[in-house]
Amino acid sequence: MSLAKSEMYNLISQKLYTGVICDTLDQLGFRNQAMREDIRPMDQAVTLVGTAKTMLAVDVYQTMKNPYDTEIKAIDSIQPDEVVVVATNRSTRNGPWGELLSTAAKMRGARGAIVDGLIRDSKRISELRFPVFCTGFKPVDSNGRGIVIDYDCPVEVGGVLVNSGDIVFADHDGVVVIPKDTLEQVVEIALQKVNRENRTREELLQGKLLRDVYEKYGVL
Amino acid sequence: MSLAKSEMYNLISQKLYTGVICDTLDQLGFRNQAMREDIRPMDQAVTLVGTAKTMLAVDVYQTMKNPYDTEIKAIDSIQPDEVVVVATNRSTRNGPWGELLSTAAKMRGARGAIVDGLIRDSKRISELRFPVFCTGFKPVDSNGRGIVIDYDCPVEVGGVLVNSGDIVFADHDGVVVIPKDTLEQVVEIALQKVNRENRTREELLQGKLLRDVYEKYGVL
Amino acid sequence: MSLAKSEMYNLISQKLYTGVICDTLDQLGFRNQAMREDIRPMDQAVTLVGTAKTMLAVDVYQTMKNPYDTEIKAIDSIQPDEVVVVATNRSTRNGPWGELLSTAAKMRGARGAIVDGLIRDSKRISELRFPVFCTGFKPVDSNGRGIVIDYDCPVEVGGVLVNSGDIVFADHDGVVVIPKDTLEQVVEIALQKVNRENRTREELLQGKLLRDVYEKYGVL
Amino acid sequence: MSLAKSEMYNLISQKLYTGVICDTLDQLGFRNQAMREDIRPMDQAVTLVGTAKTMLAVDVYQTMKNPYDTEIKAIDSIQPDEVVVVATNRSTRNGPWGELLSTAAKMRGARGAIVDGLIRDSKRISELRFPVFCTGFKPVDSNGRGIVIDYDCPVEVGGVLVNSGDIVFADHDGVVVIPKDTLEQVVEIALQKVNRENRTREELLQGKLLRDVYEKYGVL
Amino acid sequence: MSLAKSEMYNLISQKLYTGVICDTLDQLGFRNQAMREDIRPMDQAVTLVGTAKTMLAVDVYQTMKNPYDTEIKAIDSIQPDEVVVVATNRSTRNGPWGELLSTAAKMRGARGAIVDGLIRDSKRISELRFPVFCTGFKPVDSNGRGIVIDYDCPVEVGGVLVNSGDIVFADHDGVVVIPKDTLEQVVEIALQKVNRENRTREELLQGKLLRDVYEKYGVL
Amino acid sequence: MSLAKSEMYNLISQKLYTGVICDTLDQLGFRNQAMREDIRPMDQAVTLVGTAKTMLAVDVYQTMKNPYDTEIKAIDSIQPDEVVVVATNRSTRNGPWGELLSTAAKMRGARGAIVDGLIRDSKRISELRFPVFCTGFKPVDSNGRGIVIDYDCPVEVGGVLVNSGDIVFADHDGVVVIPKDTLEQVVEIALQKVNRENRTREELLQGKLLRDVYEKYGVL
Repeated sequence: MSLAKSEMYNLISQKLYTGVICDTLDQLGFRNQAMREDIRPMDQAVTLVGTAKTMLAVDVYQTMKNPYDTEIKAIDSIQPDEVVVVATNRSTRNGPWGELLSTAAKMRGARGAIVDGLIRDSKRISELRFPVFCTGFKPVDSNGRGIVIDYDCPVEVGGVLVNSGDIVFADHDGVVVIPKDTLEQVVEIALQKVNRENRTREELLQGKLLRDVYEKYGVL
Repeated sequence: MSLAKSEMYNLISQKLYTGVICDTLDQLGFRNQAMREDIRPMDQAVTLVGTAKTMLAVDVYQTMKNPYDTEIKAIDSIQPDEVVVVATNRSTRNGPWGELLSTAAKMRGARGAIVDGLIRDSKRISELRFPVFCTGFKPVDSNGRGIVIDYDCPVEVGGVLVNSGDIVFADHDGVVVIPKDTLEQVVEIALQKVNRENRTREELLQGKLLRDVYEKYGVL
Repeated sequence: MSLAKSEMYNLISQKLYTGVICDTLDQLGFRNQAMREDIRPMDQAVTLVGTAKTMLAVDVYQTMKNPYDTEIKAIDSIQPDEVVVVATNRSTRNGPWGELLSTAAKMRGARGAIVDGLIRDSKRISELRFPVFCTGFKPVDSNGRGIVIDYDCPVEVGGVLVNSGDIVFADHDGVVVIPKDTLEQVVEIALQKVNRENRTREELLQGKLLRDVYEKYGVL
Repeated sequence: MSLAKSEMYNLISQKLYTGVICDTLDQLGFRNQAMREDIRPMDQAVTLVGTAKTMLAVDVYQTMKNPYDTEIKAIDSIQPDEVVVVATNRSTRNGPWGELLSTAAKMRGARGAIVDGLIRDSKRISELRFPVFCTGFKPVDSNGRGIVIDYDCPVEVGGVLVNSGDIVFADHDGVVVIPKDTLEQVVEIALQKVNRENRTREELLQGKLLRDVYEKYGVL
Repeated sequence: MSLAKSEMYNLISQKLYTGVICDTLDQLGFRNQAMREDIRPMDQAVTLVGTAKTMLAVDVYQTMKNPYDTEIKAIDSIQPDEVVVVATNRSTRNGPWGELLSTAAKMRGARGAIVDGLIRDSKRISELRFPVFCTGFKPVDSNGRGIVIDYDCPVEVGGVLVNSGDIVFADHDGVVVIPKDTLEQVVEIALQKVNRENRTREELLQGKLLRDVYEKYGVL
Repeated sequence: MSLAKSEMYNLISQKLYTGVICDTLDQLGFRNQAMREDIRPMDQAVTLVGTAKTMLAVDVYQTMKNPYDTEIKAIDSIQPDEVVVVATNRSTRNGPWGELLSTAAKMRGARGAIVDGLIRDSKRISELRFPVFCTGFKPVDSNGRGIVIDYDCPVEVGGVLVNSGDIVFADHDGVVVIPKDTLEQVVEIALQKVNRENRTREELLQGKLLRDVYEKYGVL
């Protein structure tokens, strides 16, 4: 990659948006990369992009021995520019992510977290300015409710299979997963698409009919 | 109608709210005019009122020939003071509405859109100040996911049957559909109800018991 | 209780949060005290604590004689520092709570309301600064849709059984029910937990590994 | 009515089926008379037709005084050829119908029951040969879980508004509600439709193309 | 216990039914012992009673090393008169139970299985006459979809917490869990209730009014 | 293909079952070929295999001109050994399949139908001995509720993408889609797997431990 990873992520965050990335992935034949619509940003204005670091949490019904063991290993192994991607098998009993995990993850260099489940400590996470996308909130601890059984493993999050190393990009429209080997190609094509959309918008704002503008640029 | 259409809509927007309209429609025997609660405003503070212009989008599973043909015809035929009302048969795969459609619709005079489905380009739509009510967000294009098969046809949106020409009124409490022939009567009765609610509120704020105030004004 | 009730509630509101209360209740063996995640605050920043006053509304399909009779009795019997807790059996047809009830409740001294159902008049309720947590919004009146059949009775709200006299505490993370006889003990333990979490946070912010900090404080 | 009620019901049961009744009601402009698909017959082979006698049960969370009072009145007032139609507001906590109610209802002359909810004692109800359509089974008693608050009132069952006196007709395809004033007209038209469908079927069974047969009879 | 375990289970199976057991548990204060209604018998006529042996399966997204290790240990440790009770956290991706597990379990003495999830090989399981209650069917293997992470642990199945050693009783009306220390008391009370229900039924079948019979026996 | 298509299908139907086909497809890397569990056989004992012929029906809200035009073309173009596979975008309003379509399809040589939606005329379809798998029953006609917009197009049915020409195989455990180019390979491997399962079963029935038998045959 000609750009350093963090520069590439900043470029995506500043110049692109999830819609144009999805269109590009569609064009390349990756048509199921957008997560389910119930994974939402805590802060509507935030944009998040980084390298996926996956964790798999599952529901349990008793306090376990060393309940946090795998979870702590996962967090302490985070690398800079990673985004923690947490599968919970869509639990609504557990609150597997909270402020202290956010703090520890941030200090290791994580850019944010995507949780296919409920989280807690939302107010303090906001104050920490650590971007989190999740399906909702519940003030409960995971002890006796869920346990992390693996990390850096394939997980299904929001209906999309994610591997550690894939790129996740999230904004107000949702979360999209870019397979790791396609990143440079995706960004290059997407930047061109943005230009075409810009010209379409300009002509529409001049009052031209959609028919005429669409026939000129082929974008909608 | 003694008032021009746009003046009537401005009056509704400034003096009335969906709750008092629903009560009035109840009184006239129209008891199923409020849409399902999952159709929400993008901007919580916005109010939207206008003449319904319906579109029907359905899910498909391949790229179609001329996928946007009917959609473009629908958009280019929008008249001032219309609100685009999009049925998707509650799709969660497709994102049938976005920024470029919003721009084109706005330039034809549309006041906003009600989508019983997911949309994308939410940030730019906000910047455009084009009010949209929808069930959520997904960054995908409709090409290969959905197609508009008809417009100006009856549609079911949020559980309410809507015809082009009906009046839709939407605020933070939800979306209500006013059958076109009842508009003047509905507005007249609703304005009276507002007065009665104002007097009820005032007396409650003086600390009177709900029992006493309700017996005086019959409003709750 | 050494503190007056309202002082205790203010202490909870200022020093504690629902997460630490849930952890404390877990420790005391009360593991199902957090409500379902779809009961959300109207205003994300608000905190609400008070004594539960329960009401039970059920769906009906006709206009009843004296439809508001039990409801009015319930509202007029509210005591200061109470929070109205409304069960609707998860109705999505009815809007059993609105501005006039909020006004009347506030004037009797209520601190807010928790509704396991839809409400209306959300804009005016916000202006009234009366905190309401609910599952959503619908602009319809309850007349012909629902009726209050009892109050000060056990109700299931958000999946938690609540009795009048229990303490409800709600913030951005959700709503937790504190059984009335445990309040003092819960608050005392929770205040200690907060200290431990504070020290954990501080050491994480210094960049220490989660493993080391967790082993020191046992908090996560 | 030229036929006695019970003779009319026997005629419907022997010569007609819910599909042809729905088509007839469609033709007369009653397009929402078929109940939701999750109300299913206990015995797949059974057909049930009779005069609706409605009951409305709602969830409660404590043992009530005289919990069965209204329910007993409802059952004891059943007339011959009635079908008990029970709304529960779609409860999945309660089992409001069982064997003893079936026995009592049958002895008063009821032809069966339609329950928009769960029932119990399914084995004995089968042995009693009392046809019941319901959404499922749960072995719990209603005491402390639900209470009948009204009967002979309008109810919504399977998404269809039913009044005592309407005719309900149920077979393996589902449950349809015939508004009481339309019965004779509906039966007359339906009998003619059956003939046309019979001729269509015969010609299809001879191997003719659907196009040709449809153009001849206009039925599909 | 004065009766051997297997004799007790046969007595329950022959003389009792889940409804009367639920009523007895209600009376003793255990009001949440009936499982969710979507756990259904494969064979409607079958009755199943035995000692719970729990297993916890969770969804995974890759083929694991030794995927069946814990599962095999669980099966090989089954004791006579046990019923395997499988939690899957309500997975609809996995089919964690099938014919070979049924065969192995039966040969160890298991009386049947309760699965809060989907199963496969339903035809052969029927031929084996091994009673299974489950939420449905899917022909997929668990390898790469789910893994058993624990057994003889507390699990939540059909919304009820079950421990190994509890007694499960299942018939056409559903599945009920009898806490292990209450079994003898529950059976004794239930047998008396059956008598009272029998007398109620007899008098109803003589045509008496429900009011009169209920006042005599207090059963409904 | 060395066997004629109909002979191949009969071989599958007699010697194989959906479970072993899914395992084989897993092994070949096709891991999402089993449909959602809510598509169920009308007759539990039936097995259905054939070449997919797809149809796409969508919900509409008015009576269309020539509502059956595309549908009739689709049915009249059915070839022997085909199975009609109907997508409805999971409609619960419409009943797009019934007896007359079944009759016409059967006379063209269709082996059965898979409908991801509700059907009607279930009793007569059973009498016709035309196997249908569907999600449920509703006695309504499609006229004014749905319309077939395309056929021999890709459709998503039960969550699996199906093309005309793929092979569908359905039994009591569910429905599996075999991509057309893999059929011979899948059948060959599956027949071997059946042998290994047979030997596993035999040794389990001799009472051997699952551990020992699994280590010998590697099948579970």
